[in-house]
Amino acid sequence: MSLIVNSPSKTAGVIIIGNEILSGRVEDKNLSYIAKNLELVGITVSEAIVIPDAEDVIISYVLDYSARFQYVFSTGGIGPTHDDITITSIAKAFNKKQERNAEAVDCMKRHYSSEQLTEARLKMADIPEGAALIENPISGVPGFYIENVYVLAGVPFIMRGMLDGLLEKLDGGAPVITASLSTNLPEVQFAEGLSKIQVEVLEVSIGSYPYFKYGKQGVSIILRSTDKAILKKQQQLVIELLKNIGGEVFDEQYPE
Amino acid sequence: MSLIVNSPSKTAGVIIIGNEILSGRVEDKNLSYIAKNLELVGITVSEAIVIPDAEDVIISYVLDYSARFQYVFSTGGIGPTHDDITITSIAKAFNKKQERNAEAVDCMKRHYSSEQLTEARLKMADIPEGAALIENPISGVPGFYIENVYVLAGVPFIMRGMLDGLLEKLDGGAPVITASLSTNLPEVQFAEGLSKIQVEVLEVSIGSYPYFKYGKQGVSIILRSTDKAILKKQQQLVIELLKNIGGEVFDEQYPE
Repeated sequence: MSLIVNSPSKTAGVIIIGNEILSGRVEDKNLSYIAKNLELVGITVSEAIVIPDAEDVIISYVLDYSARFQYVFSTGGIGPTHDDITITSIAKAFNKKQERNAEAVDCMKRHYSSEQLTEARLKMADIPEGAALIENPISGVPGFYIENVYVLAGVPFIMRGMLDGLLEKLDGGAPVITASLSTNLPEVQFAEGLSKIQVEVLEVSIGSYPYFKYGKQGVSIILRSTDKAILKKQQQLVIELLKNIGGEVFDEQYPE
Repeated sequence: MSLIVNSPSKTAGVIIIGNEILSGRVEDKNLSYIAKNLELVGITVSEAIVIPDAEDVIISYVLDYSARFQYVFSTGGIGPTHDDITITSIAKAFNKKQERNAEAVDCMKRHYSSEQLTEARLKMADIPEGAALIENPISGVPGFYIENVYVLAGVPFIMRGMLDGLLEKLDGGAPVITASLSTNLPEVQFAEGLSKIQVEVLEVSIGSYPYFKYGKQGVSIILRSTDKAILKKQQQLVIELLKNIGGEVFDEQYPE
């Protein structure tokens, strides 16, 4: 069991664009931040893809995700170099021309002297016609959104600045709440009981994650739901299950 | 420019299975390790997807990736709890029955006492008929592969133990070699020149990645190819380009 089956959350797909992630040179730091913050405004990430800086692949997944999810967020490929092809690819995906956006140029003027505002830099203001801007408080070059696709920077602290300002403007659903706890029992001892608790109430998704910490083995159990009362009840059932078979329960985090 | 257009490397798709990654609770640590190590044996990761523990989604991407890439690697969802549905999903994807694999049971016997070897644990040996085992030196429960799909654990240090033993058995292509360097110039100043160097020799892919370190801004440039001689030549061209416009070049890493 997995997704919150009856969740009133909205859905999102995340498209991570960049050869440096696919080659393993750089570890993605954006998916986790995006997922946790979208959850707070009632949007659940349903799927994420890591793709190369390749126009045909970007176009294909932008259209696929835009149709399948209520929101799409892309990261990466919006800088000034030859491998930054996200903007052009998204314009092509939606059959839009790229045009210099006056408002975007104004944003850049607030961050760069006229000397710094070279043609190479100004090219980053050539966004698809009809797109609206996403403010970039860090480096001045704005992102944009068109239809349900939100185009963000790839550099993590710039992406965060953009997303943080965007969050309150998104029209989300019910926020997902989390409860968790840990136990010293191995999964095999409570797998069947946990499965029963999961299957009875599909509004609460339950995940179980073995870990090793300071040489000790344990399992972390995470429950998620948009309904706090049901979430609390299911968490209590899990705690009772574990204690009844002689397990220790610790690190409980109750829903806020 | 992006993928190594004329690369003699083989291709791989990576399927990361787990709600904990999609919800942002856990950051994926596996893609980067898989990509870097496959590269050493001549296999390039072309695409990666992060999906929930949901049978229909797993089946759909396993079949899609198995057809589009020469190798597929999945991580996650092979434990004993209700949310571990990877094995069943992969069996269904290939229309295979699950059957208890005697060799897998033997592997587990070497790690667990007969008391520990409960039915719940033994269920992890119920793999698709016709699948071959992937050794798990860490926790004893083997992974498996069927057709071109390699099914690995999700816990990073277990996954690594499985992949490390597998690497030498994979039939890869020419390994990709990397060269890199950094500069203090902003991307906008060399974007056009870099683009020319890229377009002239498609066998070398060039990526440019801005960074901030100790409050200083810089750009890291990474070149990748399966041909060491051409790679060295292109790296030299990039160094000359940057120096000619007054940039500093540092942290050069030449191809080994």
